[in-house]
Amino acid sequence: MPRFVVDVMPKPEILDPQGKAVLGALPRLGFEGVTEVRQGKRFELEVEGESSEALLEQVRAMAETLLSNPVIEDFEVHAQSDEAAE
Amino acid sequence: MPRFVVDVMPKPEILDPQGKAVLGALPRLGFEGVTEVRQGKRFELEVEGESSEALLEQVRAMAETLLSNPVIEDFEVHAQSDEAAE
Repeated sequence: MPRFVVDVMPKPEILDPQGKAVLGALPRLGFEGVTEVRQGKRFELEVEGESSEALLEQVRAMAETLLSNPVIEDFEVHAQSDEAAE
Repeated sequence: MPRFVVDVMPKPEILDPQGKAVLGALPRLGFEGVTEVRQGKRFELEVEGESSEALLEQVRAMAETLLSNPVIEDFEVHAQSDEAAE
């Protein structure tokens, strides 16, 4: 069954307190040189049917409606097989 | 400056209540056919220096130490330029 990945990240102009907390913790753990951290969400979905543009479009609608808050977050949707090929 | 992505997902054998909540909400919003949802985290890091295998290894150490809980989560690290090429 086709699998899709939805990546949801805070928009660049939105404060990201979780990312800032990680950025502050890294030097205390001995990790230097990191200048920015942003924290978002990743969803993996398994969907019935054949992988198709229509199915991708449906997952995009899910991302916009339920998985992200489009006011403060951006999202990207892609089929998981793309990612395995990285 | 090189950017890295760390994807952190609950291990397959670990219950994922957030994913289950999304899975339950989808049909109520009119989205049918989704059989599984897993929810994890995505981190985007900007690091000083040249992109190299050593830098990637350092980000891997951050992922293992701070960004994930290796008992219940798996993580993957990759340079963000890889992703843009998808």
